[in-house]
Amino acid sequence: MLIRLFASILLFCSAGVAVAQPAKVASPDGRIAVEISTDNDGRPSYRVSRNGKPLLAPSRLGFILTNAPKIERGLQIGEPQFSKLDETWEQPWGERRHVRNRYNQMRVALTEKNKPFRKIDVVFRLYDDGLGFRYEFPQQDALTEVKIGEELTEFNFARDDATAWWIPSFEWNREEYLYHRTPLREVGDAQTPITLRFADGTHVSIHEAALVDYSGMNLTRVEGTRLKADLTPGSEGFAKVERTAPFHTPWRTLTIGDNAAALADSSLILNLNEPNKLGDVSWFKPMKYAGVWWEMHLDLKTWASGARHGATTENVIKHIDFAAKNGFGGVLVEGWNVGWDGDWFGNGEDFSFTQPYPDFDFPKLAAYAKSKGVQLIGHHETSANAAHYESQMEAAFDLDKEMGIHAVKTGYVADAGGAKLVGRDGKVHLGWHEGQDSARHHLKVVTEAYKRQIAINAHEPIKDTGLRRTYPNWISREGARGMEFSAWGQPGNPPEHETNLVFTRLLAGPMDYTPGIFGMKTRAPDGVATTWAKQLALYVVIYSPIQMVPDLVENYEANPGPFQFIKDVAVDWEESKTLNGEVGDYVTIARKQRGGDDWFLGSITDENPRDLKVPLSFLDKGRKYVAQIYRDGPDASWKGKRESIVVEQHEVTSNDTLELKLAPGGGQAIRFAAK
Amino acid sequence: MLIRLFASILLFCSAGVAVAQPAKVASPDGRIAVEISTDNDGRPSYRVSRNGKPLLAPSRLGFILTNAPKIERGLQIGEPQFSKLDETWEQPWGERRHVRNRYNQMRVALTEKNKPFRKIDVVFRLYDDGLGFRYEFPQQDALTEVKIGEELTEFNFARDDATAWWIPSFEWNREEYLYHRTPLREVGDAQTPITLRFADGTHVSIHEAALVDYSGMNLTRVEGTRLKADLTPGSEGFAKVERTAPFHTPWRTLTIGDNAAALADSSLILNLNEPNKLGDVSWFKPMKYAGVWWEMHLDLKTWASGARHGATTENVIKHIDFAAKNGFGGVLVEGWNVGWDGDWFGNGEDFSFTQPYPDFDFPKLAAYAKSKGVQLIGHHETSANAAHYESQMEAAFDLDKEMGIHAVKTGYVADAGGAKLVGRDGKVHLGWHEGQDSARHHLKVVTEAYKRQIAINAHEPIKDTGLRRTYPNWISREGARGMEFSAWGQPGNPPEHETNLVFTRLLAGPMDYTPGIFGMKTRAPDGVATTWAKQLALYVVIYSPIQMVPDLVENYEANPGPFQFIKDVAVDWEESKTLNGEVGDYVTIARKQRGGDDWFLGSITDENPRDLKVPLSFLDKGRKYVAQIYRDGPDASWKGKRESIVVEQHEVTSNDTLELKLAPGGGQAIRFAAK
Repeated sequence: MLIRLFASILLFCSAGVAVAQPAKVASPDGRIAVEISTDNDGRPSYRVSRNGKPLLAPSRLGFILTNAPKIERGLQIGEPQFSKLDETWEQPWGERRHVRNRYNQMRVALTEKNKPFRKIDVVFRLYDDGLGFRYEFPQQDALTEVKIGEELTEFNFARDDATAWWIPSFEWNREEYLYHRTPLREVGDAQTPITLRFADGTHVSIHEAALVDYSGMNLTRVEGTRLKADLTPGSEGFAKVERTAPFHTPWRTLTIGDNAAALADSSLILNLNEPNKLGDVSWFKPMKYAGVWWEMHLDLKTWASGARHGATTENVIKHIDFAAKNGFGGVLVEGWNVGWDGDWFGNGEDFSFTQPYPDFDFPKLAAYAKSKGVQLIGHHETSANAAHYESQMEAAFDLDKEMGIHAVKTGYVADAGGAKLVGRDGKVHLGWHEGQDSARHHLKVVTEAYKRQIAINAHEPIKDTGLRRTYPNWISREGARGMEFSAWGQPGNPPEHETNLVFTRLLAGPMDYTPGIFGMKTRAPDGVATTWAKQLALYVVIYSPIQMVPDLVENYEANPGPFQFIKDVAVDWEESKTLNGEVGDYVTIARKQRGGDDWFLGSITDENPRDLKVPLSFLDKGRKYVAQIYRDGPDASWKGKRESIVVEQHEVTSNDTLELKLAPGGGQAIRFAAK
Repeated sequence: MLIRLFASILLFCSAGVAVAQPAKVASPDGRIAVEISTDNDGRPSYRVSRNGKPLLAPSRLGFILTNAPKIERGLQIGEPQFSKLDETWEQPWGERRHVRNRYNQMRVALTEKNKPFRKIDVVFRLYDDGLGFRYEFPQQDALTEVKIGEELTEFNFARDDATAWWIPSFEWNREEYLYHRTPLREVGDAQTPITLRFADGTHVSIHEAALVDYSGMNLTRVEGTRLKADLTPGSEGFAKVERTAPFHTPWRTLTIGDNAAALADSSLILNLNEPNKLGDVSWFKPMKYAGVWWEMHLDLKTWASGARHGATTENVIKHIDFAAKNGFGGVLVEGWNVGWDGDWFGNGEDFSFTQPYPDFDFPKLAAYAKSKGVQLIGHHETSANAAHYESQMEAAFDLDKEMGIHAVKTGYVADAGGAKLVGRDGKVHLGWHEGQDSARHHLKVVTEAYKRQIAINAHEPIKDTGLRRTYPNWISREGARGMEFSAWGQPGNPPEHETNLVFTRLLAGPMDYTPGIFGMKTRAPDGVATTWAKQLALYVVIYSPIQMVPDLVENYEANPGPFQFIKDVAVDWEESKTLNGEVGDYVTIARKQRGGDDWFLGSITDENPRDLKVPLSFLDKGRKYVAQIYRDGPDASWKGKRESIVVEQHEVTSNDTLELKLAPGGGQAIRFAAK
C-alpha cells in the first residue's frame, strides 16, 4: 500500500504549515482577520481570527463538479488584489433608513498548477461585524459549463466552547421547525442561518447573502467543530447547481458580534447584496393589514368553498370596514380563488389565480376597498407548483393591478423536495424549495410583480438572503414557524420561540409573523403561549414592513385598550437598536418611527420572568416623551392569566431608566410619543 | 400560510400513532423485533426493539429520485410475507469453517395509493445477532429507469446513552483515518461500519452487506441520535445510483450484541451475502507472504527505477529464498512494472501492468520461485485509474497466470473522488472509491481474475461488505490505516489503533494489515507504537487469509526466537472465539487451526497495561497442549522497551486459566500445540 509521501505531506500541513505565503486581509477596525493559503498539495483553505484569537481554523475551499474534475487541489494562489469601500446607502423602508457599508476586500485567484490551468477567484469582504466571501468563476475555455456536485466550503471552528441554535435541513418540512439548542459538536444537518455563542460571549451567525441562480447552502458537521457546506439538491435530472461561466456564488457569511444584540443589529447580509436594480418602489408603503385568514386557522371558516367559506364578499367587506376604521392599509383574503376544493396539497394543478369563487365579487370589493382608502392584498397559494403558477402569473398580476392591489402573499405549501419547478430546459421538474430552480422562480415572480407595481410577501419561501436590497418589492417572507402554529400546532410555538427567532431566522431578514392575537385558546395544546403584552411587543421585536393584525375582529373590538398599541405602532423605522438580549431567553428592541418622532420599544421573554433595566438613552436628547406602556399585569403568565395587562403612561426623557417586569412568557410594548 | 392539517397529522404521528396495522417480525430467539408502519401521510418507517426495549425509534424509509417523484409518502403497506431459513454453510477458508445462517424474514410491499401506483418491497431478515433489510425495486412500467438522488433510510436511535467509534466520510482520504470516539450525538459524517456501545453494554454496528452495483452508504446525523443514509456521489454526470428495475439495494445492517466480543464473532454480514457464485477456488491456499515492500516505506528502496530500485531480480531472489526457508507461500513485489517514475498520483496513465522494469526478470523469477515452492504475488497499483487498468487488465492477468501467480495485490491510491472509472456509458468519468461505478469495477476485476485462477487483495479498495462469500477469490482488502502508517505517518498508528479496528473496520471483513514488525524505529514520530509481543499477537487478532511477513529479512534473521511464532501461526481457521474485549481498549481472540489441531491466541491492549484472566475452556476437552507463550517482558512498554519479550512454554488443558499480563501498548501471542 502506498500513501507515503502524499499522506505525510498532508498531515504535516494540517498541523499548520503551508507552502505559499498566506494572503491576508483585516476588517476596517482590525479586529477580524482572514488568511488564505494552500498546503503542499495545493489545497486551499482560509482561516479567520478575531481579536488575535483563532475563530476558524484552516477551512477548506473548492468544488466537486459533476461534469469535470473537482477544483480542490493542485492550486496556487495568485497575488492578492485589495480594495475598500465606505459608503452609506438608504433603504426605501426597513429597520433603519441609513446603512453604512464599510469593508476591506481581498480578491485571490486560485489557479491550477497543471493542465487545464482552470482558475477561480475567491473574494473576501471584511466588515467590522463579520465577513463574506464568494467564489467567482471567470470565463475560460477550460471551464464553461459548470455543474456543481458539492461545494467544499468549510467552517472549521477553532474553539469547542460554543452553543448552537439551529433547525434541521432536508426534512419533510421546509423551514418550519422549533429551534434546537445544542453544543456546537452536536449540530446535525442544519439550515442557515445558524447561530453560535462561544463561552467568551462572542456570537457568530453563519448564513449566505444574495442567493441568486444557485442552490441554498445547508451545513453538515464533518466531525468535532468542523461544519461544511451541503448544497440543496438540484431538481430531478440536474446537478446541485448548473451555470455557465462567468458567474459567482452567493456570499458565504459570518456575522460576528460581542453579544447577541450585535448580531440582531448587523446589516452585513444587506450590505453584501447589490443595490436596488429595479427602480422606483415608492408605490409601496409599509403597512399593517387585516385579513380573512385566522378564522381558517381556527377552523371557523374554510379556504374551500361551501357553507363555511371565508372569502365571501360579505366577510371581506367586514374586514375592509375594520381596516379602514382603524387605519390599517390592507386586507388579505385567502381562499378567494378556485382550486381549494380538491386535494391540492403537493399538487396545485387546480388553482386558478384569476378566477374567483362565485361568492367573492372581486371588482366590487376592489372598488369598495378603494372607496375606504384600503388596499386588497392578493393571495396566490401555489402548493409549490411553481410551474403551474408561472403559466398564469402574468395574467394574475395583471388582474391584481386592475384591482388596485400592490401586495400579494404567495404560498408554497408542499413537502420539501416536492416543488414543481421550471428547469433550465423549460420543462417541469420536481425539486426543492431552496434549490437553484426555486431561486430562479422567486426572482421571476418578484420581477414580474414589479412590472405591475406589486410587492411580494412569500410564505414557505426560499430562505431570505438579503435580496430585498436588490429587489425591494420582495417585502417580506415567512420561512419559519409563524403564529399559525399557535392555532393548531402539535405542539404550538413555545414561549421561547420568538426569542429564538430574533437571533436566528430573523437575522436573514423580515418575517411576516402575524403577531397580535388576543384569543389565546386554540387547537394547539397550549393555545397561544404568551401574554397579551408579549403579543403587542412582537410588533416591535419582529421587523416586517407588512405586519398583520390577524385576530378576529370581535377580539379587537372587545379590547380597545391593548388594541390601541396595534393601531399606533409604526411599521417603518428610522433607526433600530437592540438594547439587550440572549438567544432564546429574552430581547429588547427600540425603534424610531420613520417619518415621525416617536420611538417604540418591544421586550419579550421566554418561559422565565425577567426584570430588565433599560436606560432610555436611545431617545432623542432633550426631548420629552409620553411613555405609553403596555405591560404584563402582576398576575400575568403564559401559563395563567395571559390577558392580564396594565396600560399606563408616564413622561420620560433620555435620562430616565425603565424597569421592565416581564411575566413568564410575557413582554412589554411601549410607545414613546414625542411631545 | 397553510400547513394546517398536514403538519398536525405528521406531528401527531411522530408521537407514535400510525394508521396502518404495523407488520412485525422477530429474530429466531425472539430478542430482536422489527415493526414497519406508515403514518397518516403514508410515510413508511420501521422501528427496532431488543429485549422488549426500543433500540430504534421510528426511522424513515424511502428514496429521492432524480428522474421521477420521490418515493416517500402516500404509500400503503401490503400484507407481509414471512419465511425462515436455518442452514449451515462452509467457507472455503475463513475465521470459521461452518457458518450458521438462521433468520426469520418478512417482506412488505409499499405501494403508492395514487397514480402511478409505484411499488417497492422492503425485506427484513432478523437474526439472533442483528438484522438486515433491503429495498427491492420490481419490474413495473411506472418505474423502469431508477436514478437515485438519495436514500432516505434512517437509523433513529431511541436511546441517547451511546458512545460511537467512527471515521469521517468524504474527506480527502478514503478510509485511512484514526477512529473518533464520541457520544452518539456528536457523530459527524461517518463511514460504515460505525460501532455504538450503549450504557447497558449493548453494542451495535451499522453497516451494509452485498454492495453490488450500488453506491456505498455513509451516515450523516440529522439531529440528536438520528442518523440517516448518505450515499456516495455518483461519478461525474451520474446520479448517486442508476439502475434498471428489477434490482435491489445492498442490505442495511445492524449487528447487535450484548458486548463487544459478540460483534466480533458475528457472521451476519457474510450470511446476508449470496453463496459462492464463481465455483471452485481450491487453487488458492491461505498463506503468509514476504515481500519487497517495507523497505520502500522505510525509504531505503524506491518503487521507481534507479539506484535504490527495490524490485530488482537480485532483491526478489533474496526474498524468495527467505520465504522458502521459512515456509511462507508467497513473495509480493511492488515497483516491478513501468510507470512509477513520473507523477503518477491521481493519474496512473503511465502504469503498464505487463511491462516490467529492465532490472526485474519476470520469467526468471517466476521459474525460480516455482523451483523453491513459492509463488510470486502480483501487484497492480492503479492510482485509482480504474479505466486505464481495465484496458490492460485481461492481458495483465494472462501474464500473471503465465508466471504462476495466484494472488494479486491491487492498489487505488488517489484522492477521494479522484478515481477514473468506466461509467455505464462506457466512457471515463471521475468518481469516488465507494460509488456505484467503483463497486462495478471491483467485481469486474474479481471476475476477470477468477477466470485465471487469481485471487485479489485490494488496497485502498471499496469497503468490504462480505462479498468474499459470493466472490471467494476476493480474499482480503485494506480499507483502513494499515501498518505502513507506522512507517511514515504523522502521526503513526497509536497503541489503541488495532483495538479500534477489531470492533469497527474488521467487522466488515479481512484486512491485510501487515503485522510482524520488529524494527520499531521508523519515520513516524513514535515509530511502531507497540511491543514485539503485540506484533505477534496481531497475526491472530486480525483475520486475513493472506498475512504478510513484512519486515526486513535481516530483522527476522536476527531474532529467531520471536520469529518462530510468525512461522508457526496459522492463517486459516476451523473456529474463532473472541474471549474478551472492549472497543478501543483490549481484545483477546482464540482461533483453532483449520486442517490441524493447534489453537492460537492473540491478546492486545491499547496504551494501558492489562491483566486478563483467560480460561482455556475453548481448547478441546481432554486434550493436552503445549502453550508456547510469547509475552511482554516485565519491562516491556510501547514507550520504552518494545523488544522486551519472554518466550516460554507450559503444558495446559482446557481446565486451566491463564493470566495474561499485557504491557502498555503490548500483547501476547500463544500457540497451543496439540500433543
